[in-house]
Amino acid sequence: MRIGIYPGSFDPLTNGHLDIIERSRGICDRLVVAIAINREKQPLFTVDERLEIINHIYKDDSSLEVVSFSGLLVEFCKSQGIHYIIRGVRNITDFEYEMTNASVNNKLAPEIETIFLMTKGEYAFISSKMVKEIASYNGDLTSLVPQFVIQKIQNKYSSIRR
Amino acid sequence: MRIGIYPGSFDPLTNGHLDIIERSRGICDRLVVAIAINREKQPLFTVDERLEIINHIYKDDSSLEVVSFSGLLVEFCKSQGIHYIIRGVRNITDFEYEMTNASVNNKLAPEIETIFLMTKGEYAFISSKMVKEIASYNGDLTSLVPQFVIQKIQNKYSSIRR
Amino acid sequence: MRIGIYPGSFDPLTNGHLDIIERSRGICDRLVVAIAINREKQPLFTVDERLEIINHIYKDDSSLEVVSFSGLLVEFCKSQGIHYIIRGVRNITDFEYEMTNASVNNKLAPEIETIFLMTKGEYAFISSKMVKEIASYNGDLTSLVPQFVIQKIQNKYSSIRR
Amino acid sequence: MRIGIYPGSFDPLTNGHLDIIERSRGICDRLVVAIAINREKQPLFTVDERLEIINHIYKDDSSLEVVSFSGLLVEFCKSQGIHYIIRGVRNITDFEYEMTNASVNNKLAPEIETIFLMTKGEYAFISSKMVKEIASYNGDLTSLVPQFVIQKIQNKYSSIRR
Amino acid sequence: MRIGIYPGSFDPLTNGHLDIIERSRGICDRLVVAIAINREKQPLFTVDERLEIINHIYKDDSSLEVVSFSGLLVEFCKSQGIHYIIRGVRNITDFEYEMTNASVNNKLAPEIETIFLMTKGEYAFISSKMVKEIASYNGDLTSLVPQFVIQKIQNKYSSIRR
Amino acid sequence: MRIGIYPGSFDPLTNGHLDIIERSRGICDRLVVAIAINREKQPLFTVDERLEIINHIYKDDSSLEVVSFSGLLVEFCKSQGIHYIIRGVRNITDFEYEMTNASVNNKLAPEIETIFLMTKGEYAFISSKMVKEIASYNGDLTSLVPQFVIQKIQNKYSSIRR
Repeated sequence: MRIGIYPGSFDPLTNGHLDIIERSRGICDRLVVAIAINREKQPLFTVDERLEIINHIYKDDSSLEVVSFSGLLVEFCKSQGIHYIIRGVRNITDFEYEMTNASVNNKLAPEIETIFLMTKGEYAFISSKMVKEIASYNGDLTSLVPQFVIQKIQNKYSSIRR
Repeated sequence: MRIGIYPGSFDPLTNGHLDIIERSRGICDRLVVAIAINREKQPLFTVDERLEIINHIYKDDSSLEVVSFSGLLVEFCKSQGIHYIIRGVRNITDFEYEMTNASVNNKLAPEIETIFLMTKGEYAFISSKMVKEIASYNGDLTSLVPQFVIQKIQNKYSSIRR
Repeated sequence: MRIGIYPGSFDPLTNGHLDIIERSRGICDRLVVAIAINREKQPLFTVDERLEIINHIYKDDSSLEVVSFSGLLVEFCKSQGIHYIIRGVRNITDFEYEMTNASVNNKLAPEIETIFLMTKGEYAFISSKMVKEIASYNGDLTSLVPQFVIQKIQNKYSSIRR
Repeated sequence: MRIGIYPGSFDPLTNGHLDIIERSRGICDRLVVAIAINREKQPLFTVDERLEIINHIYKDDSSLEVVSFSGLLVEFCKSQGIHYIIRGVRNITDFEYEMTNASVNNKLAPEIETIFLMTKGEYAFISSKMVKEIASYNGDLTSLVPQFVIQKIQNKYSSIRR
Repeated sequence: MRIGIYPGSFDPLTNGHLDIIERSRGICDRLVVAIAINREKQPLFTVDERLEIINHIYKDDSSLEVVSFSGLLVEFCKSQGIHYIIRGVRNITDFEYEMTNASVNNKLAPEIETIFLMTKGEYAFISSKMVKEIASYNGDLTSLVPQFVIQKIQNKYSSIRR
Repeated sequence: MRIGIYPGSFDPLTNGHLDIIERSRGICDRLVVAIAINREKQPLFTVDERLEIINHIYKDDSSLEVVSFSGLLVEFCKSQGIHYIIRGVRNITDFEYEMTNASVNNKLAPEIETIFLMTKGEYAFISSKMVKEIASYNGDLTSLVPQFVIQKIQNKYSSIRR
């Protein structure tokens, strides 16, 4: 059985992430969406909230699992018997960053392969960072994130602003 | 009447900015130079000081207006009846960043067009960030910023150092 | 009056070209779509056929003119009193090529400005070259070129194949 | 069963191609290495010679098939029930070219997915074109192509020179 | 006598740095490895520790000197009679950053030349930042940094963790 | 003694080439400007004419030698005891091309080092190809090539046109 992992911060999940998740599923028998716990970044959503959001969207889907992890990605892969890392690439800047990461991971664990999918043109400009910036100014998030995420963001900002 | 906006931090105004302003004016009937109020960055000059600098340089020019704004650029454009955003592009890194911004702005407000001018070769290496770094070491700023800005920077740093 | 020129080979006109033409018109009072006569390339359509195609699509539009030219673009601009060259940019490869051209043109004629528009994401992958390749294999051109161009291409290839 | 296709000119097969083939096999249940018949290029090896070379190297491997095809890649994929195109990416230039191709193919056949693998650093500088240039000057091809290809190239050039 | 300077943070020294140092030495009669004292960054190793590490590795080598400096690099070069700045370039992102720096330095001190060496493919993915990240998770640093640096990092982290 | 080689087509020599030659001389004790004899390209100037042009400009300079060569550059370097290849880099496209060449040359001859200089901003848009195109339309070449080359080009084209 081919198990693939799609790692990221997902803070928040965007339509670009959903596109990669949908397309990744055809490549693997089982897909693990893995939320990286980052010690430095100040996130908008807690790891638990992010787990809840992705689990809500894929609640009836047994071929997909949502987890969180800390530490080195390749160590987590080894511990879980995962051999395929899947990454979406939007542009040159992403590409150079991912090329560096894939090279390091290949040094640390040559048996793990990194697979790239190109984000579709209509999603290529979406980033979690930009979604948070637009949200902070109360801008329109339709077409950038799923409806369920819009609700969660509105709740989050209304509690921040109150 | 065609109104264009040239948004930026202008902290401080450089010769690269001046080049884009001069060349932008031929494209519009009226040009709005708009200082973006950024909540996160720690600026060298306050928004008021930056307004004063650009107003000083263009004091006798009725076809150019200097303003500050906060919030989303496209919302500001809508509120002012502005249909053209003008951006200077120096290199690939700028280009990818601007391409992403233009795509988001097009999603949020399809009626607003983003126009790009390429910074001339002799100015393509100038950035406000680098000007501040050189200034902090008391380096030579001639050929990087207008004379009036050099004075303001010297005043600023002499008051910081005192 | 601001006159802009949008130069290119247009062999054939694509939906990407149409996007740039539409968006260019807001920037100028009058737009000249200029077919560059290239001595070296072996075109699919003759210059006259390309003039006919673009004229057909914009037949009722007095603010737009379609012409052909040979020689240096800036010399043609000078002879016609044109001060704005408009170019669409799809990606990094385009960007570097256009940056070089704009720099040369600026050396040859500093009074002529080059303005860049970014091709919309959904058209960013379309090129005339690729349209011709797909057409040569009888592939589906819907969503790549206007309907009128599809007919012309089919006529062209059926006469070639006969 | 997941069938993937690795298309290319393979004129000649290089160690970079071998790296992508080896790594592609883990992703698919069956891999089709497909030699694109290009009407315009003047190849070093005929399509039959290229089929022979790759077949020789993978002679005992029933999970891999070597074929040639002409026409549009996505049409060939459809006719063979193939849903995954695999491409190696060495650098930015490759990346932009592949991004354009993947976008076109997605328009022509949305059900077919393109998967990218990054060529390992030690192979990232190898291209068939450069192998041919070095070979034409009788340069050392060890570490660039498999031993069997070196023999074939030597035979080819000694017959050309004779 | 040609004196070259190889400036950097070297926090910590990596195998990529060693590669550039080795190759730089052929270009100059004397090489100055210069640790830039950065007021903003929070380093892993103090400047003294970094001096010690590089001095340890090159202890018996009179043609190489290790120093630290603060302020503008070109001012330091002028004060030391150094005319060649040597920089390693790994990828496009490095290249644009270095091109900007070289242009500024050329404005500030036209008599000082910047020379670029391309980092070898096998080291092109190594950065000090990534070494620190892997070290923080106790990952394997073999093949990324010299053995002496591994010891220093282990001492550093064991004292941090204690 | 350090001998460096600056290889190229030099068809014709441009102000960009002169910039690199001048700056290369500080790096080497002796500089060899080497005209690559290319079997495929249709040149404007014969190899002898190109030798004459560069020799004319550097006629009184014993530290610089102008030669032509065919075959692999690294083989020529080995035969001449040359250890430094010097290349000018103008932009990203150049950079990727040169990075590939340097990697191949390093495989073929690890003892030969490739050194890169960045073309100054004011020359970064000049290419021999573009000079020939402008010349073919009788455009102004001042500021693109040395005066002596302008004369040679005018002679060449007047004899072609006659």
